[in-house]
Amino acid sequence: MRHSNETDPDIPALLIDLYELTMSAAYWDNNINSVATFDLFFRNLPENRNYLITCGIERAINFILNLKFDHREINYLRGLPIFENLSPIFFEYLSQLRFTGTARAMPAGTFVFPNEPVVEITAPIIEAQILETALLSVINFETMVASKAARVVQAAEGRMVVEFGARRAHGPGAAVAGARAACIGGCVGTSNLEAGLLYNLPVYGTIAHSYIMAHDDELEAYENFAKTFPNDTILLIDTYDTIEGAKLAVRIGKSVKAVRLDSGDLLELSREVRKILDDAGMAETKIMASSDLNETKLRMLMNENAPIDSFGIGSELITSKDAPSMPGVYKLVETREDGKTHYRIKLSKDKINLPGRKQVYRMRDANGMFVKDIIAAGGEFDNETNLSPLLITYINDGKLVEELPSIEWIQNQVKRGMTEFSDELIDPLASVDYPVEVSPRIKEMIKIAKSEHEGTTES
Amino acid sequence: MRHSNETDPDIPALLIDLYELTMSAAYWDNNINSVATFDLFFRNLPENRNYLITCGIERAINFILNLKFDHREINYLRGLPIFENLSPIFFEYLSQLRFTGTARAMPAGTFVFPNEPVVEITAPIIEAQILETALLSVINFETMVASKAARVVQAAEGRMVVEFGARRAHGPGAAVAGARAACIGGCVGTSNLEAGLLYNLPVYGTIAHSYIMAHDDELEAYENFAKTFPNDTILLIDTYDTIEGAKLAVRIGKSVKAVRLDSGDLLELSREVRKILDDAGMAETKIMASSDLNETKLRMLMNENAPIDSFGIGSELITSKDAPSMPGVYKLVETREDGKTHYRIKLSKDKINLPGRKQVYRMRDANGMFVKDIIAAGGEFDNETNLSPLLITYINDGKLVEELPSIEWIQNQVKRGMTEFSDELIDPLASVDYPVEVSPRIKEMIKIAKSEHEGTTES
Repeated sequence: MRHSNETDPDIPALLIDLYELTMSAAYWDNNINSVATFDLFFRNLPENRNYLITCGIERAINFILNLKFDHREINYLRGLPIFENLSPIFFEYLSQLRFTGTARAMPAGTFVFPNEPVVEITAPIIEAQILETALLSVINFETMVASKAARVVQAAEGRMVVEFGARRAHGPGAAVAGARAACIGGCVGTSNLEAGLLYNLPVYGTIAHSYIMAHDDELEAYENFAKTFPNDTILLIDTYDTIEGAKLAVRIGKSVKAVRLDSGDLLELSREVRKILDDAGMAETKIMASSDLNETKLRMLMNENAPIDSFGIGSELITSKDAPSMPGVYKLVETREDGKTHYRIKLSKDKINLPGRKQVYRMRDANGMFVKDIIAAGGEFDNETNLSPLLITYINDGKLVEELPSIEWIQNQVKRGMTEFSDELIDPLASVDYPVEVSPRIKEMIKIAKSEHEGTTES
Repeated sequence: MRHSNETDPDIPALLIDLYELTMSAAYWDNNINSVATFDLFFRNLPENRNYLITCGIERAINFILNLKFDHREINYLRGLPIFENLSPIFFEYLSQLRFTGTARAMPAGTFVFPNEPVVEITAPIIEAQILETALLSVINFETMVASKAARVVQAAEGRMVVEFGARRAHGPGAAVAGARAACIGGCVGTSNLEAGLLYNLPVYGTIAHSYIMAHDDELEAYENFAKTFPNDTILLIDTYDTIEGAKLAVRIGKSVKAVRLDSGDLLELSREVRKILDDAGMAETKIMASSDLNETKLRMLMNENAPIDSFGIGSELITSKDAPSMPGVYKLVETREDGKTHYRIKLSKDKINLPGRKQVYRMRDANGMFVKDIIAAGGEFDNETNLSPLLITYINDGKLVEELPSIEWIQNQVKRGMTEFSDELIDPLASVDYPVEVSPRIKEMIKIAKSEHEGTTES
């Protein structure tokens, strides 16, 4: 077996914020056994986003299926000062705990909008509560990168985009999971070999400045590389002077598959380099560009018809630099105990949520384009043919009941979505609000939840 | 043995960008056996930063010591189309490869400025080259979080700051390594239990809104929690109405250790809540605050003497939201072959680097305060008593020669640094340039490197 390391996709059971276990202890100690429903949703869209693309769902589902505290984890918890007066029976209960409930989710690759449940968990309240941190950590991050990748790929207007960000990712785990998410969002591959190995992603690579600098002579560096990789000669030409580099690449000849630009004015340089290559009869040699690119810079290059064939994108993509933190939350929306259902709602002024168990329906117009979503109660519009339900049941009674999709299926889901929403919504530089309605039955639940709460506080 | 998972601190050998291996293959295939020196450094400081604090050094050193490609990794590489024409002997070489060189670094917890080598690797060029991505990934990320934490902690002016960001971190690995880095930067602990377990960090937690909402009655929720945790009763009071919540907390009594505010105007609410608590004789009950806090908001609260005793900080800290990507790079600075040393320098207009093997010296004034750094050649100022060298040798001939520091040692290193630089430099809202000079010998190396390069290109 392979030695364990940070990039393994499994998530430890203890990826939990302490308060989930203090709450659990209080539920257990006070015999609160409600069945609870929690929604994971985005309260709003972050900066510059018209939509998000769900990602990380399969990892989240596998985490739920495999949830189990081992001896080391239980012993650690028992040793914490805050738990020192708790009954040992609570820790016995924790060591036996498995997920026995229901997990519904939008499949990875689904376009999602504010307040729509991405994941809905229904389970005995302790089982549901302790999933919070792990689900948010995985889904917030992978959704963020897939969504950013979709923007960059749209801006590249059909040119290939390769994920190049491992060195700027938030550590090795983020580098590898992020490479996969980027490929879900539309990148053709990654430079990251560990991600290539784990997820069977296409890998791409060229040479670095150090390779050129390690030779006394730039041409010799090119010749050596061309000798070793005659079918994959991609030359980095900006180490000393891009134009001189292009002229040296011409001396290698037509076998040069591509040259890469990594600094300077990419528009101007790509035009000059294209001319040098074309004048030498090297029309088949491609130009690749990198250098702190993002969707705004790509749009500018494409508007000017820059003769660049592919892009490598690092920091801006893997860190989602303009929106590096996603506002996903995990909120209680319903409890059931002794046959009675309570719709749950947080009433503080600036942060509210929608109560009850839900379904999200996506409406098509006569042309088959998506025009509106309705956040509704489960089953509320199941008979309307122009409304597609988005949440599907992955886990029932603690068991997987729906096969997890392959990365190819997810990638196709994203590609199809790009054609089913309006061009304005997909445009990375436009700002568009997609209509999301709340159904009559959810509005009724809000009323019931409010009146129940008022009834309680007045008594 | 514990089942492997994403948060394990080990880094896989294949956390490599493909180009490091294509370059390595070209070196191998062309018999280039130079001994190379690479510097890992920050070309500039990111937004709003006067300094960075090194972090992740021990993980990087352990990665180097344990570097080894296993069978699965070698087989994966051999199967890549780009490598299909390479001699099998290259893969045999890779499977035997271990690090045999020297690794020098600034210890974790060191204040660092632009262009100063944080890590310096000297080894046969392939061994040195393939470390690039892993070293950058770990050191960029952990340095980023430690540095952000230092800013937040300074702004809190002695109030406790707890790291709360697991759910907004860039995945589970970032959550756990980030929690440790935050505690190095000055946080007193984390909410993240996995980080607590792995790194023996103090863990903190309260309750969530869902806990209150799972009860029909807010007071009952408080009573239940106080019953289960009589010595650790921390109550979240803003689920419905913060002032009403404070009044209910008073009904629990003096045993309430703290109340937490998580929304609204924290300054105004903390004052009102403090008064409610004090009027009830609960002067010992603390006020804790959270809610998208950062150093600017903390400064405002401290300037107004907000009666808040501790802070929980999530997204802004763990993602370093105002500067979510660090500009660390790994550049060739020297090669040696057949007894001849070449200083290596990249000359393209916007990106240069300093050649040669180095030492960074930090100068103290008569009061013992740090006033200036000098980036110099190794040994250049070793006899000057007011100049402290910062780089130490951790690995020599592939073996650990210096014990890796404990987290307590690193935390003390940071705390001491806070007193050894000027108040303006440490002030998170000030903008100060710390002087960093380049030594005469390094300037001489630049001249030599330039003239060697010109000699080559003219020939």
